[in-house]
Amino acid sequence: MVMVSRKITHWPLALTFWASFALAVSAADGPAPPPPEAWRTVDPQNLVLIDTKYGQVAVEIAPEFAPNHAARLRALIRAHFYDGLSFYRVIDGFVAQGGIGEGTASTKDHPLEAKGLTRWPPLKAEFDRASAPAPAFTPLGNADPMAPEVGFEDGFPVARDPAAGREWLIHCPGTFAFARDNDPDTAATEFYIVIGQSPRRLDRDLTAFGRVLSGMQYLQKLERGDPDVDSGVIADASKRDPIIRMHLASDEPVTERETFQVLRTESKSFADALEARRHPTSPFYFRKPPPVLDICGVPVQVRRVSGP
Amino acid sequence: MVMVSRKITHWPLALTFWASFALAVSAADGPAPPPPEAWRTVDPQNLVLIDTKYGQVAVEIAPEFAPNHAARLRALIRAHFYDGLSFYRVIDGFVAQGGIGEGTASTKDHPLEAKGLTRWPPLKAEFDRASAPAPAFTPLGNADPMAPEVGFEDGFPVARDPAAGREWLIHCPGTFAFARDNDPDTAATEFYIVIGQSPRRLDRDLTAFGRVLSGMQYLQKLERGDPDVDSGVIADASKRDPIIRMHLASDEPVTERETFQVLRTESKSFADALEARRHPTSPFYFRKPPPVLDICGVPVQVRRVSGP
Repeated sequence: MVMVSRKITHWPLALTFWASFALAVSAADGPAPPPPEAWRTVDPQNLVLIDTKYGQVAVEIAPEFAPNHAARLRALIRAHFYDGLSFYRVIDGFVAQGGIGEGTASTKDHPLEAKGLTRWPPLKAEFDRASAPAPAFTPLGNADPMAPEVGFEDGFPVARDPAAGREWLIHCPGTFAFARDNDPDTAATEFYIVIGQSPRRLDRDLTAFGRVLSGMQYLQKLERGDPDVDSGVIADASKRDPIIRMHLASDEPVTERETFQVLRTESKSFADALEARRHPTSPFYFRKPPPVLDICGVPVQVRRVSGP
Repeated sequence: MVMVSRKITHWPLALTFWASFALAVSAADGPAPPPPEAWRTVDPQNLVLIDTKYGQVAVEIAPEFAPNHAARLRALIRAHFYDGLSFYRVIDGFVAQGGIGEGTASTKDHPLEAKGLTRWPPLKAEFDRASAPAPAFTPLGNADPMAPEVGFEDGFPVARDPAAGREWLIHCPGTFAFARDNDPDTAATEFYIVIGQSPRRLDRDLTAFGRVLSGMQYLQKLERGDPDVDSGVIADASKRDPIIRMHLASDEPVTERETFQVLRTESKSFADALEARRHPTSPFYFRKPPPVLDICGVPVQVRRVSGP
């Protein structure tokens, strides 16, 4: 079993003398390593792998937030819908959007129709859902500028409106969602992944139902469009980076399957990590930062435990 | 004169049917284009160009926030200090750090010492400064989670503590700063540029004094380090992407000089853009987003008006 830790820790230091920095970090009173039971193995049915020419991107989807979108995504993947399509709209600091890239799959003039692809009708929006029972939700622990309450569920950044009893996935770097037309019920096949500063204004206005577990750096290498021209669509199709293949871990033989684990956000280990981040003890901080965390700036530990 | 607009607008839409999206955007009551006097031409002495193998990155520095660091940076550039060095610590979602990459320039065992490079003693920190007079500062217009007040000065995102009469540059994507050791007064030669979600906890704890005007997508292509190993330093020097050349626009012949303009953040055009962003009228929004802006999510228009 390959054991590659991908904690995505984002140490807050940016030093000239990194040798002494390493010492400083080991000397800090960091939280203890999480025990085995603090890790949740990602359900292979929810583990989407996107092969790009730069490397593989692993996305965990959250079907409980958008059951119809999750089912559609799995069906599209199993139909090899995305294989050979492209990231055709990539706006630096914003999103990488993939799929057909011309019209919607539901329009009559779908250019791929002629190629015998099944048509995929638009889905009803799944912008939010009834809030999960309390134990599943771990509050961030401070106010959020955009929502009444924010926190984590199964590692996903989540916002809630307790008065309305609704909750939804937050747009952070790495958030996976389906694109749509102006009408809310028009998502069909196109997806996007956030690659820049959290565009929180999209929260609860698009169906977000996943997050990148690893491979963000490969998305960052994607060829960009010009945001001032055709809203970032790369006109020259030959310049678009291909989606070489999109597949589900559950469709691979067990012995060759990618397996990821995510730190349980309801665990004591995660609570300790939140606390350590809120009140850093590293001597690097000349000024202690305000004890306020950004829901999109808190890393949730991920590790890859096996794979081909 | 080449006229290339680089507005970095980040349209908030992520559509399947981008053709109709384009229509939707033109139909929206967007603010009028800024008049010529709303643009400020960047002082060529403050325009730093970083040549990477992926493309050129343009950074505007703000000497008024950190006069000694700005003077040091200019001196280093003019001594060709950075040319041929590398981005040796690149952490996805966090920072790209460039310079020598081994020890500090001020340590006795400086490996470049033997090559005849001048030694550069550590600088006194310039984490903040006395607040500029009111007209220079344009408030964002809503509360910020991390600082008493935030807004813009000359296009730079700035935080202020009115009680203390101090202000400082904010860590947003694209912020340029000098790295340091644990002691606050240790920055010497190494720089970093934020390439991920705003690490606001670094605000006022490092000397930030610039921002990227264009070329973020080239920084995003840089080879990454593993954040869990040596705090993201790329051990294999052959894998580090080189800083091919770093130069100042003012050192180029006038006819071959890069020239950028930044929308004046004290202009009516910028106020209108803020308002339009706070209250978007696009029919795309099924739900109007909360009228709250993220200081690091507001684009400040930049355009390149000439260059080689």
